[in-house]
Amino acid sequence: MTTIADFTSQYGLVEKIDAFGYLDYLKKNPDAPRKHGKVVLVTADTPLKASRGEGKTTTTIALIDALNKRGIDAAAVLRQPSMGITAAGSKGGASGGGKASLTHPELIDWGLCGEMGAIEAAQNLLVSFAEKAVDEGRLDTILVPRVSEVPSRSLRSIAVDYGKGDVKEKVVLTPTCELMQIVVLSRSMDEIGQRVAKMIAGTKDGKAVTFGEFVDLWRITGILADAVKPAKTETVNGSPVYVHGGPFANVSIGIPTLVSVEMACALHDVVIVEAGYGTDAGAQKWLDIACREFDAQWPSAAIVVTRASTWRDDPELSWRYPFHVNRLEGLDIPTFPLINLWDGEDDQIPALKETAEKLEFRDPIIGNLYRDGGEALAPQLDAFVDVIVNGSAPARPHSHKGMSVIENVKWVAEHAYGVPADRVKFKDGFLASRDEAVKLCESAGFSLADLALVAVKSPATMTDNDRAPEDERTVTLKKVEVHAGAGLVHVNLTTSLTTPMPKIV
Amino acid sequence: MTTIADFTSQYGLVEKIDAFGYLDYLKKNPDAPRKHGKVVLVTADTPLKASRGEGKTTTTIALIDALNKRGIDAAAVLRQPSMGITAAGSKGGASGGGKASLTHPELIDWGLCGEMGAIEAAQNLLVSFAEKAVDEGRLDTILVPRVSEVPSRSLRSIAVDYGKGDVKEKVVLTPTCELMQIVVLSRSMDEIGQRVAKMIAGTKDGKAVTFGEFVDLWRITGILADAVKPAKTETVNGSPVYVHGGPFANVSIGIPTLVSVEMACALHDVVIVEAGYGTDAGAQKWLDIACREFDAQWPSAAIVVTRASTWRDDPELSWRYPFHVNRLEGLDIPTFPLINLWDGEDDQIPALKETAEKLEFRDPIIGNLYRDGGEALAPQLDAFVDVIVNGSAPARPHSHKGMSVIENVKWVAEHAYGVPADRVKFKDGFLASRDEAVKLCESAGFSLADLALVAVKSPATMTDNDRAPEDERTVTLKKVEVHAGAGLVHVNLTTSLTTPMPKIV
Repeated sequence: MTTIADFTSQYGLVEKIDAFGYLDYLKKNPDAPRKHGKVVLVTADTPLKASRGEGKTTTTIALIDALNKRGIDAAAVLRQPSMGITAAGSKGGASGGGKASLTHPELIDWGLCGEMGAIEAAQNLLVSFAEKAVDEGRLDTILVPRVSEVPSRSLRSIAVDYGKGDVKEKVVLTPTCELMQIVVLSRSMDEIGQRVAKMIAGTKDGKAVTFGEFVDLWRITGILADAVKPAKTETVNGSPVYVHGGPFANVSIGIPTLVSVEMACALHDVVIVEAGYGTDAGAQKWLDIACREFDAQWPSAAIVVTRASTWRDDPELSWRYPFHVNRLEGLDIPTFPLINLWDGEDDQIPALKETAEKLEFRDPIIGNLYRDGGEALAPQLDAFVDVIVNGSAPARPHSHKGMSVIENVKWVAEHAYGVPADRVKFKDGFLASRDEAVKLCESAGFSLADLALVAVKSPATMTDNDRAPEDERTVTLKKVEVHAGAGLVHVNLTTSLTTPMPKIV
Repeated sequence: MTTIADFTSQYGLVEKIDAFGYLDYLKKNPDAPRKHGKVVLVTADTPLKASRGEGKTTTTIALIDALNKRGIDAAAVLRQPSMGITAAGSKGGASGGGKASLTHPELIDWGLCGEMGAIEAAQNLLVSFAEKAVDEGRLDTILVPRVSEVPSRSLRSIAVDYGKGDVKEKVVLTPTCELMQIVVLSRSMDEIGQRVAKMIAGTKDGKAVTFGEFVDLWRITGILADAVKPAKTETVNGSPVYVHGGPFANVSIGIPTLVSVEMACALHDVVIVEAGYGTDAGAQKWLDIACREFDAQWPSAAIVVTRASTWRDDPELSWRYPFHVNRLEGLDIPTFPLINLWDGEDDQIPALKETAEKLEFRDPIIGNLYRDGGEALAPQLDAFVDVIVNGSAPARPHSHKGMSVIENVKWVAEHAYGVPADRVKFKDGFLASRDEAVKLCESAGFSLADLALVAVKSPATMTDNDRAPEDERTVTLKKVEVHAGAGLVHVNLTTSLTTPMPKIV
């Protein structure tokens, strides 16, 4: 009998799994034993600043430990943190903490098995081939950016062949690049190859030129051979954790790979998917991109993590946490508030419960997860488990394919940021950028409206100014960028950094 | 009893070994069982072009298979090939071929366990911190280059912060960077930290500023935690092969890590070290840098590989092969010519033997190693085995520390390229570059003469023009570059590319 073990090989302190092969095997063997796990999203309140986490990963780890303690076969799917950002000190790692930790956090935080490095090399190789295509007269402008996992403000704008050609290029962070998106969204190596072939390298006489026209795909798939395999590790309490895909749900999709979630659902009854930042970021992207446009599983429940201080200590921004919770409940996703306490905050529990009741939340789950881990959660999960076990079949939303990019952003602004269509503004140059994107797509033989929308924004704000009164909040659109291979169109909002190169600290 | 297994953890299809820990254990336990293996260099004829290998890796693999077949415990230590160069098509992989292959060539050729990517990220992070130091007024010029594993001609010269600061920077290939050299030469993580601290980030008011003055070393050692561990794999016939360190012995040191060789010597009786390109490149660097300045083991024998066509088909260049063989014999290293036949060349064996005899070589070892692997070699190794078993203790050469960089280059030109001191020329600007390097080192508190010399040259030529008559051949010095952390000084010869960014093909 073939089992997951046939697709697993030992890889350092973690295991690497051939998820493509396993899912293909399940497809070809519909009677093979498998589970049909339910997806639960763990998302969070909008952080007060990007570098301050609410504790999503810690919560995710504590939650699967608590569920497994209750006899429920639960696993988590995490995104690999960016080593460059961690090493630069811009952000901590992403492997939980205290009693809610992974067995080998150092491995997860410091490069895992080279997945990010491989994606970086592969996308940079594409740029090298684009440069060669310029030399050969196939291209006159390069549109695909170089990537770097290491942040550097100076890389926001670079010129290569400096002193001669002075070719202006762009560098983006590896986790946010189109090739990472392709790895996250693809369900086979063939699909990766097809998507790379559709990536727009640049233009010649104003017309899109794709990599499929001049690059041998084996070069890319060769580099990615190992990076497409999810890593399997575990919590200090033995609960299974899969790590695959890149972070940064504000400036990219920032979700785990679709295959890692599908594989986990075939192996476990409950699969916790970590959706970065708030419902305006990672959760919005899981629901509106992964589920709606790429056939991922709609969540059967959600947990929205906050810190007591984030929720309550800045009254001007305290509208955001209930907005996140209500947004998901409004989508018929049973949503559980979870307050992750810091040391010395235990005495706030009664007041937090009272506030939650006033807001008509479900009973909040409250605990110091760093200190107490899953033990703090297990006794509070009755309602959550009931929803998972007895809930109705998840919804299947309708695709927005064919909706214009502006209508699409307006829809997101209204539903995910609470800003109505008439307060979606265009910055100077936005419409020109949109028109250029329309033309670029037409020249490549498809419509801009067929791409799924990725809103590119700051992680710490949902609108142009979250401190403005509700009826004055706006969202301003800045520019449009096509990721044809990934099947995505990026729209930058004013609150975003155009090239996300966080300051090193 | 502690054994190598205590330092070994499973890592994908290869194993990773904590060589630092194992060697430290042997040092602290002098009575622990260990071997005292002898080092054998496998080097080659100067190739007709860089992309054409003579078959060093194939020979190395066939050789250990043949020795093990004869009951001798032999292992090989290889350098990890550059994935970027392989994917770009500039050079094939480096995992042997045919019957002389590794079990998982795809793994070795396509990024191994992310070692190169980690070194790339770590050196680029240093550059990011140097940029931050510029912002903070600690530095006014950055001297440490960015790195890329992917070749790109356009990266030879770049400007970052383009349109504002227009800061000129350099990008070099990852395998050739100072941090790779530090990983290759260091015997503990502490030593790596100390060497990184001594790396010169740039200058302030003309004076050297080192990374130790402003970077927390945990950032770098954290990234390198796994990259410092040699990978263990094997040949298709089960002979052990360790892979660690970067290639390119023409533009850098290009030797395996010292700890991987020392570890192999503690575990096996014969350790084959692959020294890239000819005796003017990898072998020169093993002997004159690793052995003479960094206490590596002097080889007990050498094998110089050539292809019949390289040796004989270009009469103007046919002086080079005997030069290599005689150079090593002149150092009292018993040196065996090995001719690696291609298909259809078997009938050349008698003529090749006759030529070797005329040249007063030892009996040449001749075989089609791709087709026949170690079986072709085993019966020809009597003389080789006799030398290994009965040879005298290896020499211990005297350090050149304190010798001026120019005297040092003249010594290399005479001994390794056959060009006497009076035909070593200076290009315009060389002396100025040397003077600047002297000043830089003085401002950092040490002498340029204390650094070991790395000649940076083309892989395909030993002098300015190898086709010139012997008494007209010259070597021209172009510029000097200090790698203070690695303890090396680079001198570029005219035949080198200043930034080695091979054309992608």
